[in-house]
Amino acid sequence: MKTKLSANGPLLSKIATGVWKWGEWGSNFSTTEIEKLIQASLEAGISTFDHADIYGNYGCEALFGEVLKANPSLRNEMEIVTKCGIKLISENRPSHKIKSYDTSKEHILFSVENSLKNLATDHIDLLLIHRPSPLMHPDEMAEAFTELKDSGKVLHFGVSNFTPSQFDMLNSRVELVTNQIEISALHRDPFLDGTLDKCLEKSIKPMAWSPLGSGRIFTDKEAEDVVRVRKVLTELSEKYDASFDQLLFAWLFKHPSQIIPILGTGKTERIQSAADALKINMDQEDWFRIWEAAEGNEVP
Amino acid sequence: MKTKLSANGPLLSKIATGVWKWGEWGSNFSTTEIEKLIQASLEAGISTFDHADIYGNYGCEALFGEVLKANPSLRNEMEIVTKCGIKLISENRPSHKIKSYDTSKEHILFSVENSLKNLATDHIDLLLIHRPSPLMHPDEMAEAFTELKDSGKVLHFGVSNFTPSQFDMLNSRVELVTNQIEISALHRDPFLDGTLDKCLEKSIKPMAWSPLGSGRIFTDKEAEDVVRVRKVLTELSEKYDASFDQLLFAWLFKHPSQIIPILGTGKTERIQSAADALKINMDQEDWFRIWEAAEGNEVP
Amino acid sequence: MKTKLSANGPLLSKIATGVWKWGEWGSNFSTTEIEKLIQASLEAGISTFDHADIYGNYGCEALFGEVLKANPSLRNEMEIVTKCGIKLISENRPSHKIKSYDTSKEHILFSVENSLKNLATDHIDLLLIHRPSPLMHPDEMAEAFTELKDSGKVLHFGVSNFTPSQFDMLNSRVELVTNQIEISALHRDPFLDGTLDKCLEKSIKPMAWSPLGSGRIFTDKEAEDVVRVRKVLTELSEKYDASFDQLLFAWLFKHPSQIIPILGTGKTERIQSAADALKINMDQEDWFRIWEAAEGNEVP
Repeated sequence: MKTKLSANGPLLSKIATGVWKWGEWGSNFSTTEIEKLIQASLEAGISTFDHADIYGNYGCEALFGEVLKANPSLRNEMEIVTKCGIKLISENRPSHKIKSYDTSKEHILFSVENSLKNLATDHIDLLLIHRPSPLMHPDEMAEAFTELKDSGKVLHFGVSNFTPSQFDMLNSRVELVTNQIEISALHRDPFLDGTLDKCLEKSIKPMAWSPLGSGRIFTDKEAEDVVRVRKVLTELSEKYDASFDQLLFAWLFKHPSQIIPILGTGKTERIQSAADALKINMDQEDWFRIWEAAEGNEVP
Repeated sequence: MKTKLSANGPLLSKIATGVWKWGEWGSNFSTTEIEKLIQASLEAGISTFDHADIYGNYGCEALFGEVLKANPSLRNEMEIVTKCGIKLISENRPSHKIKSYDTSKEHILFSVENSLKNLATDHIDLLLIHRPSPLMHPDEMAEAFTELKDSGKVLHFGVSNFTPSQFDMLNSRVELVTNQIEISALHRDPFLDGTLDKCLEKSIKPMAWSPLGSGRIFTDKEAEDVVRVRKVLTELSEKYDASFDQLLFAWLFKHPSQIIPILGTGKTERIQSAADALKINMDQEDWFRIWEAAEGNEVP
Repeated sequence: MKTKLSANGPLLSKIATGVWKWGEWGSNFSTTEIEKLIQASLEAGISTFDHADIYGNYGCEALFGEVLKANPSLRNEMEIVTKCGIKLISENRPSHKIKSYDTSKEHILFSVENSLKNLATDHIDLLLIHRPSPLMHPDEMAEAFTELKDSGKVLHFGVSNFTPSQFDMLNSRVELVTNQIEISALHRDPFLDGTLDKCLEKSIKPMAWSPLGSGRIFTDKEAEDVVRVRKVLTELSEKYDASFDQLLFAWLFKHPSQIIPILGTGKTERIQSAADALKINMDQEDWFRIWEAAEGNEVP
């Protein structure tokens, strides 16, 4: 169930497992628990793992790397995505005095070396610039990318949270294979502001973070859009014999750009459930029922 | 008085007659009345007729087709524009449960077959996608367009109500010859949001719906922008010996993209009057007087 | 300390001296005073002078030209930028009845002839369209530019206050070498709305008007963003041994597009001080401290 991210892009699974809550920022999993999650993900056909240098206060990559060190053969069964470019204030980075962005060649190379060491791997499948910096220098970034590609340390490059004009700017110097952005039925901006148009125009597949709307669909009992969407999901749940999660994933899969949602879960059963959502082919009218419920109005 | 819509586009008249109010949604004209309007339009040099599958609750094309059946030679004197892609809730489409968009190949081909049959013609000069759907699949649409072009059923393709990024996205797969959008002195967004820039950049002529601001200029006695614009039009009316309609058309004709306004009228005398507006060459300063009155401020 | 504005653009100094307040709209300098300012600017290595036909109520170019007439050799030591396209209501232009834009070929040629005569020069190094007109006709403007280039009267062309889509539109017909826009720590829109992305994508250097935020940083004692920025500048002032002006210029110089700020001053000492700011290399974190203070929030 793999898919090519773009003409020259990597093969990723159609869903990715995100690790950002596995460490300090969330569940604080042991390596045993992490190994179990990795195995469950691979068994469900979800072979792409989404990291960032900063996840878990600069800790998640190393936790994940512990498992790879103990099980070196696992590396060949997966694709690793990681990110760089944000500098957090953290006791693990005492030199940082302020939250800032750094997309200098020096920092990109430094960050990749750390990721490789922490992840106990000799290559990253896909490196993303985590946030667009107002100080991005496309030629310098292209230089860093070329050096990393030539050395085999990073195979492909992409961005995250980029506007269409930021994408065009950097893409004018170096081939980008994805834009990882927030997309969900509760966050529809990318459908309207040109971000998904750009992905379609360039034939690159977007990755979606918070594909379930940061869980707001389950926890927010008062927001009118959530109440309306829950009502529709309740009806569709029966029709498709599917959970809310699965319907919301199926809603994303319906988009022609072939969105790759990133799972935020730490539960093995929800990983399998997400993979099963790939089998749902949502009717066009049902897609628009969810859209209309989220908007609060029918389409113009 | 014809004009090429783009380098490879069709020859259309510089003004188009819109039929959307001729049926159930407006005047409910008899075929005799419609024939009279068609004749008046052709005599005024306005040979392009603007349709959509949905106009008049899916009824206008057939009413128009009745006239063409009775007078087959008329077809050669005119160009027919029609649209598809919106699905309305209607007793004429009982399968529709919700207002939605459909730009699938299947629906585009189905809609064109209906339009050809209703209009009693073997070809459509220009087919427009009526609204940008969040589920538009450019490759699939291109496939539908190619099939329709190869079979001679549709000669040219365009869009309606598209943003610049939606235009670029679809235009990357198939040559689009126009974008039909709302433009008037009371709706100036396209001058500022990049929509008309895109038309100029690509050398395509836009078509304008509601070119008189949905008649608000005549009916709204309180809105401040309308009051200011009416004041200027009253002064210019004398200078140019022209009606308000004519001045508002002349204002659109002044734009370098060569906007083609779509008449919404069902009165023969107003069709001739609109055609006469093509003779007015509005002074640059007068153009800016209307702009300033509509904005409420002088230009920056 | 010159820099090429774009691949085929002119060599300008890395800072420009703006003359807009030297005449009726500001200090009403005598030709002696103007000569002193020109000399101070050249001595500071600032050889580019930024004009517009309208500055000083259509008067500044002629004041400047008086100095050049008296000192013809000065012309070879400087680059002259001027602008056209705005028509002001003024006793010096009695035919203007309304503030409007005019980007017709006729007006561009007329305006350049006036500028050449007033500035007592046979060529303009860089001509900018002062504001985007809703009636811009790219082919007609390209025709005017070509004629001016062929005759040697204008060497290069650019724009001012253009959005990215307006830039692309005109740039599709004629090579533009800059976009002169408002940029400062207190006006950060261009960092976020695609304007600076476009400059980087096209490898053209922007020019910045009001690079100090129209002096608001010095005069506004209450606005929260100003108070926060002043606090940071006060701290950095010591670290870099630099004035507020210099820090704000250094902040602009840090951007990879190589922004050329336009000085609005009429004081010789501030010209030298600005030139000295080129020596400051602001730390990345300090750049983000100013950004964060201006925004009121840390970066996302």
